[in-house]
Amino acid sequence: MPDIRQQRIVLVGAGNLATNLGHALMQSGHTVAQVYSRTEESATALADRLHCAATTAIDGIFADADLYIVSIKDSALAEIAVTLTAVNPDALWVHTAGSMPMDTLPCRRRGVFYPMQTFSKQTIVEFRNIPIFLESSDADDMPLLRVLAENTSDSVYELDSDTRKHLHLAAVFCCNFANHCCTIAADVLSDKKIPFEVMLPLIDRTVEKLHTLTPLEAQTGPAVRYDTNVIDRHLHLLDARPDLQRIYEMMSKSIHVYEGREKREE
Amino acid sequence: MPDIRQQRIVLVGAGNLATNLGHALMQSGHTVAQVYSRTEESATALADRLHCAATTAIDGIFADADLYIVSIKDSALAEIAVTLTAVNPDALWVHTAGSMPMDTLPCRRRGVFYPMQTFSKQTIVEFRNIPIFLESSDADDMPLLRVLAENTSDSVYELDSDTRKHLHLAAVFCCNFANHCCTIAADVLSDKKIPFEVMLPLIDRTVEKLHTLTPLEAQTGPAVRYDTNVIDRHLHLLDARPDLQRIYEMMSKSIHVYEGREKREE
Repeated sequence: MPDIRQQRIVLVGAGNLATNLGHALMQSGHTVAQVYSRTEESATALADRLHCAATTAIDGIFADADLYIVSIKDSALAEIAVTLTAVNPDALWVHTAGSMPMDTLPCRRRGVFYPMQTFSKQTIVEFRNIPIFLESSDADDMPLLRVLAENTSDSVYELDSDTRKHLHLAAVFCCNFANHCCTIAADVLSDKKIPFEVMLPLIDRTVEKLHTLTPLEAQTGPAVRYDTNVIDRHLHLLDARPDLQRIYEMMSKSIHVYEGREKREE
Repeated sequence: MPDIRQQRIVLVGAGNLATNLGHALMQSGHTVAQVYSRTEESATALADRLHCAATTAIDGIFADADLYIVSIKDSALAEIAVTLTAVNPDALWVHTAGSMPMDTLPCRRRGVFYPMQTFSKQTIVEFRNIPIFLESSDADDMPLLRVLAENTSDSVYELDSDTRKHLHLAAVFCCNFANHCCTIAADVLSDKKIPFEVMLPLIDRTVEKLHTLTPLEAQTGPAVRYDTNVIDRHLHLLDARPDLQRIYEMMSKSIHVYEGREKREE
């Protein structure tokens, strides 16, 4: 196997994930040769951080790299995949999208390098404990991807596209939807001029419990026993917000259904 | 004001909150004289921990205490409030229920002592950073409640019943509903034999972000731009689970509506 630290890597994309991944690669001794982004500002910003070249044109992407890591919006990925991989059809191309099948990349040697985390450009997170899920079309490319992943993270898994789709769906519930529950809470609080910060100890503890209990075991609240006294009063408080009433009712019913299922299985 | 540490306190209830509160009171030098619970086992278990008397009969509750802290299920509270407060109608009675108005207690000197946290008997949590929300019918009783609260916690607020109702509603979204999102994720993962633990770094980071960003600023995922490619594929994965499809769709639409509102306000 070629020494992965000698490989020329091109990062296609300069968004939240690309920025964090670029940092993690640099910190683990890898060399990113070039960053591509449609927008000059993003390309330059990340290239400056990684001390490498930048380009905003697909035909400006280095054609002699060994590995291309494509980290762009899912919708853009499908659109430009053909043009992109034509830059160097014999190289290994991987994308970082949890929800996209590996076959989105129309080249021979393709793969997936999916670090499951919520990223922002402003905060560079520690990659060590971020699970990375790998897939490759050519078994010969897996050792290289594995070494690259293990150089940046302690939890590396191989996962096929179908299973990864479910993983990504689960992540949307855990991260995106759970966060939205907090957005709604902040909205309810702001009507009464209560700062959202008072919720943080409760939120921290809610998550802390998940390190020792299953989410089903950790569940509390009026919906567990479907306490209609409390539920009806809460729904009444939301009379001016039918959108939030529907979410409240649907989540409460779902909690109750899961509790009932659990009891029957005991 | 009488020295609060000399006051005789009776704890009515021996559930998750009562157990944690009892501990916190004991640790801060207060004396719980007696624990009441309908069930012998719960009453004795908590009384043993607090080195105090136990009773399972309402007419066995000490009639000479100074302060009664009622921490029982919301539905039970409304039912037995009259019988309960008749034990000592001149004393100060407070309940610990976030969602119940102070007036649920039908006595002259009544109040609320609401520590906003998700508790379990198994884990005794540190009370210091738990916000406690106070209310009292008689202004003369507030200093006593305040000292009691400040002895156990660093964040103590006075809040009327109406505002507290909204606070409790917000807590249901942040804690109960966010946790349920994780239950659904665990369910999706178990179908594919993926352990829920792989989600923990993502969940931890999602919450960590809320310490520096508003939940709306922290929002990520396909629903932000309503990426129908990803959303439709996720809905398709849930074809066998129409209940989860409805939750997925409703949460995604709500995220998108909040994002749109934000953009218009910028």
